[in-house]
Amino acid sequence: MEQVALSDDLKISRIVHGMWRLTEWGFKDADTLNFVEQCLDLGIDTFDHADIYGDYMVEEHFGKALSQNKFLNDKIKIVTKCGIKMLSGNRPEHYIKHYDTSYSHIMWSAENSLKMLKRDSLDVLLIHRPDPYNDPYEIARAFNQLREEGKVKEFGVSNYLPGQFNALQAYLDFPLVTNQVEISVAALQEWDNGTIDLCQELGMSPMAWSPLAGGAIFNAQTHRYITLKNVIHQVSDNLGVSIDQVMYAWLLSHPANIIPIVGSGKIERVKTAVEARKVEMTRQQWFQIWVASRGQNVP
Amino acid sequence: MEQVALSDDLKISRIVHGMWRLTEWGFKDADTLNFVEQCLDLGIDTFDHADIYGDYMVEEHFGKALSQNKFLNDKIKIVTKCGIKMLSGNRPEHYIKHYDTSYSHIMWSAENSLKMLKRDSLDVLLIHRPDPYNDPYEIARAFNQLREEGKVKEFGVSNYLPGQFNALQAYLDFPLVTNQVEISVAALQEWDNGTIDLCQELGMSPMAWSPLAGGAIFNAQTHRYITLKNVIHQVSDNLGVSIDQVMYAWLLSHPANIIPIVGSGKIERVKTAVEARKVEMTRQQWFQIWVASRGQNVP
Amino acid sequence: MEQVALSDDLKISRIVHGMWRLTEWGFKDADTLNFVEQCLDLGIDTFDHADIYGDYMVEEHFGKALSQNKFLNDKIKIVTKCGIKMLSGNRPEHYIKHYDTSYSHIMWSAENSLKMLKRDSLDVLLIHRPDPYNDPYEIARAFNQLREEGKVKEFGVSNYLPGQFNALQAYLDFPLVTNQVEISVAALQEWDNGTIDLCQELGMSPMAWSPLAGGAIFNAQTHRYITLKNVIHQVSDNLGVSIDQVMYAWLLSHPANIIPIVGSGKIERVKTAVEARKVEMTRQQWFQIWVASRGQNVP
Repeated sequence: MEQVALSDDLKISRIVHGMWRLTEWGFKDADTLNFVEQCLDLGIDTFDHADIYGDYMVEEHFGKALSQNKFLNDKIKIVTKCGIKMLSGNRPEHYIKHYDTSYSHIMWSAENSLKMLKRDSLDVLLIHRPDPYNDPYEIARAFNQLREEGKVKEFGVSNYLPGQFNALQAYLDFPLVTNQVEISVAALQEWDNGTIDLCQELGMSPMAWSPLAGGAIFNAQTHRYITLKNVIHQVSDNLGVSIDQVMYAWLLSHPANIIPIVGSGKIERVKTAVEARKVEMTRQQWFQIWVASRGQNVP
Repeated sequence: MEQVALSDDLKISRIVHGMWRLTEWGFKDADTLNFVEQCLDLGIDTFDHADIYGDYMVEEHFGKALSQNKFLNDKIKIVTKCGIKMLSGNRPEHYIKHYDTSYSHIMWSAENSLKMLKRDSLDVLLIHRPDPYNDPYEIARAFNQLREEGKVKEFGVSNYLPGQFNALQAYLDFPLVTNQVEISVAALQEWDNGTIDLCQELGMSPMAWSPLAGGAIFNAQTHRYITLKNVIHQVSDNLGVSIDQVMYAWLLSHPANIIPIVGSGKIERVKTAVEARKVEMTRQQWFQIWVASRGQNVP
Repeated sequence: MEQVALSDDLKISRIVHGMWRLTEWGFKDADTLNFVEQCLDLGIDTFDHADIYGDYMVEEHFGKALSQNKFLNDKIKIVTKCGIKMLSGNRPEHYIKHYDTSYSHIMWSAENSLKMLKRDSLDVLLIHRPDPYNDPYEIARAFNQLREEGKVKEFGVSNYLPGQFNALQAYLDFPLVTNQVEISVAALQEWDNGTIDLCQELGMSPMAWSPLAGGAIFNAQTHRYITLKNVIHQVSDNLGVSIDQVMYAWLLSHPANIIPIVGSGKIERVKTAVEARKVEMTRQQWFQIWVASRGQNVP
């Protein structure tokens, strides 16, 4: 699979796999190893994590499995996140869901992710959500130290608006490498809030979470989603590919180099996403979907 | 008439004429030539076009007429636009209205405009609408080539938000010279979305389409428009000028150097706009209209 | 009290006193002098004014009192504002509330403030509101001249959005030192409109007007305010401080170095604010208030 350069030193596969739900799949270590190997065979070499996934358990599960196969483990790249403090039996000190982007928490969380994942370094560390109580100077201090210590190679953000992105970037001597945001045929807000524009201005690839709109289209109930589903079916018929391939191709064909995060634990569905790279969607087909999702013609 | 410098190399008249509806006026070639000559006599030397105007026919009509008088044709400057693909009998390959800002379409469209207008070069080429599927690198590649080949002198955009403008500008080594947006006593959104601010920051003159609010004030039906019309009448009485002159003066007196695009095919109405340059509207009169249009006092 | 550096040359106290309502307090000159001395004893050395406060009378009242004690007057710093033209018996030429940020009005207003305040210079002059009819070049011309003449040390704005701030800043060779905006437990809009982000990006301290939400929380009637009040009471109980101290501490503990403007004429209430600097609010307490004010959990 083709690679995307996030920086001079880091390239990742054009499609990333998301481990968000790993602990829900009933995988034993051998299953996880097998699944990762199958992803690698498909060309996916990057796996998306967050400290909080699986009630703070996904990183540990993944690390425990992968550490059993150094050969495999050396081939993969890891994205993980920090900054959310969830209500969880595993974090009894949290009495309200909140964010913590202090120097000390970022340092602790990155080091804890390394420990859970049983790795020497993370490829990309993201701030999971913009924190209204954030101090960009503190975040930058943590990022700089983690970088110098070789614990994290590159840094990014998730769900940041342009002003939030610019504020943090102003404190860093190296460029943030991505903004992981929700983008799908049903989630167009990143075009409205300036995020896609800023990514293109900077030549930075966004990552797309929920690239299949969380299944909302498959189970369309509202008028908007039913219309959108019908148009996707029509494009699917015209292209001779499945409707989820249409949804992936809609992202993959966009000039902003959007990196979809595929979250399925079924390798067949991952394969579907990988093959969507070959779909040649026309500009008019892309706009058919855009217009159906907007609910109105372009002006 | 005074001129506005869009760049070091290009000055245009303070008021531009818009040919949007040329094919609706029943003009023969002689009428078009006569009308353009009358505009020039009034000091208007710049004519605004788009590939799509008049169902893709305005440029051709205009070019056919103007090519018959080289002396006149050499005196005028042309703004035109590309990037919209409309449903039209003249473009049967379009099955949905969409945008196309690909390198190849911009190149083809600019060259087709030259052919239709029977000119060697365009003075300004604008991207007509922000395209959610745009690749600013591709647009810049087309702009650079058109500039190097001498086919287009300057470039701009239309209906762009600040983030969209900045993304495209980042790919160009020369400044975009204008953003053509809707501005009128009834259309204040460019103050809210940051466009006027960005124009002032860059020292770039915006062009205003629909400077008379598409006639909405003349035929006021809603409470807001009736109130606004009454205030405009009051200012009109106080200044001793017509209500459309008040509306033009409201734009012309603004410090952002707004260039109104006058769209009438009646030379008397064009003259009215030209004379509005001399109206001395006070700051309080300007705010009377602002407040009436907003529907509330300034905070 | 600790000081905040607004520029290399100007430091002001971490808390500013706002003289907005001075003329409503029934103060004689001796009372004003006494009040200012008590503020200085608490460490507050900066007093916030505007030309329009007290129907254009506050500056004069304050100046008349302070000029009677040169020793005291030399110790204090003055922030004032210009640009609003209110309806007032003291300005009969205004027939509609409007803004005036012309060169001539800024010059006249700054000089009039000096005369009213009986001072040789102002420490900070702010444009009171973003003016839709503003010419940033003209504002910059006035600022430059006032600075060169030694009449005003530093300049800033009030209630500006980021795009408005950037447009003005682009015309100045020195940095604007603050944006005075509404920030409180009940006024979170500056997080949404990018102002807090821009302040942090620039390392510029915002000033907060209405830091107690204009008393709305004390007299809570709406569901949102009742919920917010209950949470503030809970945090107040946990910290063992008053509810207005919780509201001040919520601002003072934020990493953006927010400078609250305390507007009370009762020195005991000012003291309350000053002591709020010592409150150690935890991150979870800060988020309890954020969440209650938003009406929903963080995502």
